[in-house]
Amino acid sequence: MTVDLSEICTRLGINPIAPPQLTIGGVNTLELARETDLSFAERSDQAIAVGASHASAVLVPPDFPELPGPILLRVSSPRTGFFAIAELFVSTPEGCGIHPSALIDPQAELGKDVAVGACAVVASGARVGARSILGAGVYLGPEATLGTDCLIEANVTIHRDSMLGDRTIVHSGSVIGSDGFGYVWDGGAHRKVPQLGRVRIESDVEIGCNCCVDRATLGETRIRRGTKIDNLVQIAHNTDIGEHVILVAQSGIAGSSRVGTGAVIAGQVAISDHVSVGNGARIGGQSGVTKDIPAGAEVFGTPARPLADTLRELAALARLPALLKRIRQQERQIEDLTRRLAALEQRAGRRDSPQSAPVIRSGDWVTVTAAPRYLRKRR
Amino acid sequence: MTVDLSEICTRLGINPIAPPQLTIGGVNTLELARETDLSFAERSDQAIAVGASHASAVLVPPDFPELPGPILLRVSSPRTGFFAIAELFVSTPEGCGIHPSALIDPQAELGKDVAVGACAVVASGARVGARSILGAGVYLGPEATLGTDCLIEANVTIHRDSMLGDRTIVHSGSVIGSDGFGYVWDGGAHRKVPQLGRVRIESDVEIGCNCCVDRATLGETRIRRGTKIDNLVQIAHNTDIGEHVILVAQSGIAGSSRVGTGAVIAGQVAISDHVSVGNGARIGGQSGVTKDIPAGAEVFGTPARPLADTLRELAALARLPALLKRIRQQERQIEDLTRRLAALEQRAGRRDSPQSAPVIRSGDWVTVTAAPRYLRKRR
Amino acid sequence: MTVDLSEICTRLGINPIAPPQLTIGGVNTLELARETDLSFAERSDQAIAVGASHASAVLVPPDFPELPGPILLRVSSPRTGFFAIAELFVSTPEGCGIHPSALIDPQAELGKDVAVGACAVVASGARVGARSILGAGVYLGPEATLGTDCLIEANVTIHRDSMLGDRTIVHSGSVIGSDGFGYVWDGGAHRKVPQLGRVRIESDVEIGCNCCVDRATLGETRIRRGTKIDNLVQIAHNTDIGEHVILVAQSGIAGSSRVGTGAVIAGQVAISDHVSVGNGARIGGQSGVTKDIPAGAEVFGTPARPLADTLRELAALARLPALLKRIRQQERQIEDLTRRLAALEQRAGRRDSPQSAPVIRSGDWVTVTAAPRYLRKRR
Repeated sequence: MTVDLSEICTRLGINPIAPPQLTIGGVNTLELARETDLSFAERSDQAIAVGASHASAVLVPPDFPELPGPILLRVSSPRTGFFAIAELFVSTPEGCGIHPSALIDPQAELGKDVAVGACAVVASGARVGARSILGAGVYLGPEATLGTDCLIEANVTIHRDSMLGDRTIVHSGSVIGSDGFGYVWDGGAHRKVPQLGRVRIESDVEIGCNCCVDRATLGETRIRRGTKIDNLVQIAHNTDIGEHVILVAQSGIAGSSRVGTGAVIAGQVAISDHVSVGNGARIGGQSGVTKDIPAGAEVFGTPARPLADTLRELAALARLPALLKRIRQQERQIEDLTRRLAALEQRAGRRDSPQSAPVIRSGDWVTVTAAPRYLRKRR
Repeated sequence: MTVDLSEICTRLGINPIAPPQLTIGGVNTLELARETDLSFAERSDQAIAVGASHASAVLVPPDFPELPGPILLRVSSPRTGFFAIAELFVSTPEGCGIHPSALIDPQAELGKDVAVGACAVVASGARVGARSILGAGVYLGPEATLGTDCLIEANVTIHRDSMLGDRTIVHSGSVIGSDGFGYVWDGGAHRKVPQLGRVRIESDVEIGCNCCVDRATLGETRIRRGTKIDNLVQIAHNTDIGEHVILVAQSGIAGSSRVGTGAVIAGQVAISDHVSVGNGARIGGQSGVTKDIPAGAEVFGTPARPLADTLRELAALARLPALLKRIRQQERQIEDLTRRLAALEQRAGRRDSPQSAPVIRSGDWVTVTAAPRYLRKRR
Repeated sequence: MTVDLSEICTRLGINPIAPPQLTIGGVNTLELARETDLSFAERSDQAIAVGASHASAVLVPPDFPELPGPILLRVSSPRTGFFAIAELFVSTPEGCGIHPSALIDPQAELGKDVAVGACAVVASGARVGARSILGAGVYLGPEATLGTDCLIEANVTIHRDSMLGDRTIVHSGSVIGSDGFGYVWDGGAHRKVPQLGRVRIESDVEIGCNCCVDRATLGETRIRRGTKIDNLVQIAHNTDIGEHVILVAQSGIAGSSRVGTGAVIAGQVAISDHVSVGNGARIGGQSGVTKDIPAGAEVFGTPARPLADTLRELAALARLPALLKRIRQQERQIEDLTRRLAALEQRAGRRDSPQSAPVIRSGDWVTVTAAPRYLRKRR
């Protein structure tokens, strides 16, 4: 596809720049741009790269130097402007229409302009909202419902009764609505606890590749509006993930835990079961959250504690080997002082009178100080 | 489906309660139950919630107060009774029979009442036991064998020669019997070590979504009877996972390691290769197991050590920043004592006679003590 | 298949051994070998196991004792020789030819002798090099290209524009070329940053099961020649993984990070975004890499630091609880010394010259020192 440069200028809110008949065929970095591409630079020190770029037009900040080469479009925020234009060039997913090999149960309901890819399966009672797209090999189970304008990528599995809101995106390999992990030991075996609930995903949620969102034992596993989930993330049964949460790759939330609105959970974080993470909390990478996190808190470590505390402890830990040497040095110094002090006391005792009785103390090390000799017993 | 209340009473071992013609259509929590549902309460302080529930019947403990509203069924353990009844309402997986789009190789053998979903593939020489169910898009490779009453969910991949016992459940996206990760550096490249063994999974094992169980280099990767595995778990080649083990989500077992009967391995645990975890051992979340764990041990941390040791160290670590201040304070005190002691020694020396030779010591800090003045040199 | 023993001897570079007509049908360990199998032993103390093995021939080192039983083939490195022979017995993947249920877009190009499994989908503009094999249920997106002799296992998803080199292996469930994880907060919601780049994977790369390799925002996510990736690994957008890198299971590399040639990254490691790992660096299991790692460095821990430092700190940490006791003991000793010294000073003061007023100081611990003079200055 191509877009007229004049239309791009309009969208950026700047005056059209000659030649108005120029068309843009794509967007890319300065280095990778081809001759029909739009690119961007954020700082004046990128002038050489801009001059060397094959791009036909480059978004630059207002104070960027004049250059021969690409057409310069001056905007207040080149990056923001660039990605706004870039959205025009996002490939619309392939496979429009219902592929002849797709298997749509007669009891399923498809909205207007729904696309279903090759070998995708839509089971009985499933409902798909208008303009939603199911990629090749997708499985949509019985009674599962999708909102409008959803994108379910190739080889996603969505099990029975799951509910996904409008504009939901699920990337390839993810599984929604599988059984939660629940057993009771019956004396001889782990007996499976029936997993009878469902998954409810609200609108504008995006779920990465190869994620797992388990159905609730009873009730719902819930992911709320606008939350974005990276790849390989585990969402256990009966969890409740708030709105606009960010869950980075390979993190996992155990059963029945809650994550508040706007929380940010970094990569490879584990959150234990029945824990509550407050609104806006931030959890550092690889942390292990074992108890409730207050709203707005920033935590790190396993077990996760306030970030400042963990960093202070890590800094102290780095000094610990040297500290051990200092402790040993102090012990030698104390020993030396004790010996010298005992000698002084003895001399003072001889001079003064009467001689006080020897003092015997005990501790982790038993120290016996007594005239006329010094004795030390060690464990 | 519906179940007569009288049958539910019989199954619970209690006397039928009027009206005997009542039928139950499902199970749910007190809050979520609809008018045809059965629910449960475990404590008397849930009386208000029971009264407000739409459930038509509620399992309660024997001493629960009488209430208007739902029919109360008094049993010794409402939770256990509830989940026993809940099993009656578990959806039988859809897709009974062989879907016309399933691709069954003529050399494959299917037992009685086997179900195969849409676009599933059963390769040559594969054998499937009676009543087993393969979901849509499942791939069952050549010579792979499934026992009876297995449930292989949609989009599972089971490679050649894998053997799965009776009543095995594998959830969507998991891959059984892929190549193990083995290479030798040949001086210029990592050369692949052929992975010629297989996977053997015994009866009553359940494997979550998007797990990986690799085939052995030679011999077998083995998962023994009754073991339950959560989502996104990695089982490397030649491992041997004992009976009734619990492996929580995102944990991983490296090559040739063994896990004993009844061990419990929490989420995001890593177990190194060639390690042995004893029977009944418990490994805390995110631990990194680098050496053998004795039977019954409880370990935590990276590297994993006895839980009590790790907790003691973490508690000590939390006090380390304050400790650093105490050490500095002690150093000042020792310095002060040393100076004062030297002064006393000098006065005593002047008084007594003869003056002893100054003592010179060295350590991390060089301390020179000498009459008539005290000097200290620091690094 | 079978291989004549005489051919095996030729391949091992040793003289043929009678009976030359013997054929070998497989390879296995000493314990698991059947009567037509070849096995190997590396040490003389395995003589009893060799004698008891059902193998018909066993590779042994030159100094291995003579034994009745299996034919002994003496070679300098039995293990290397064994796996070289083992390669002869690797199953050639099934499904040769284009399965009738495969869906090949007329605009796709397949090279000579390409095999495509059941229900696999090859989209418009995709190109597959000669002799490459696509398993059942594979999805190859529009304009994606595969080199020659690739093996794409069942249920792999490769999205549009991805480029894979010759002899690339991708195991089941992996997803190549999905959107990277990029959003900007627009004041009310996380707005998706278009992911317009691609994935480029060079030749001889192997990628395990259920991995994710995300497309670049702009430009390329790149995995270079000869790199081997285990299962469940996350490769984020715009990363650049060097040649011959080893990435062990469940590790993850965040956006725009670079990994140098020959680096080894152990299991469950996390590498932050925009970080550079030097050539040949080694990163210990479960480490969290938050800043650049120099070439050849060996690091461990979260955050990752030089291995020796981390081990020293861990060793010191293990001694910390005992250290706390020593500190308390020292405090008692210092207190005792202080008291005794003050007493001596007082006696000396009485004897010597006019007694000055006692000075009282306070700190974390209150210390009372009395003496004619003495002043302490604190920081």
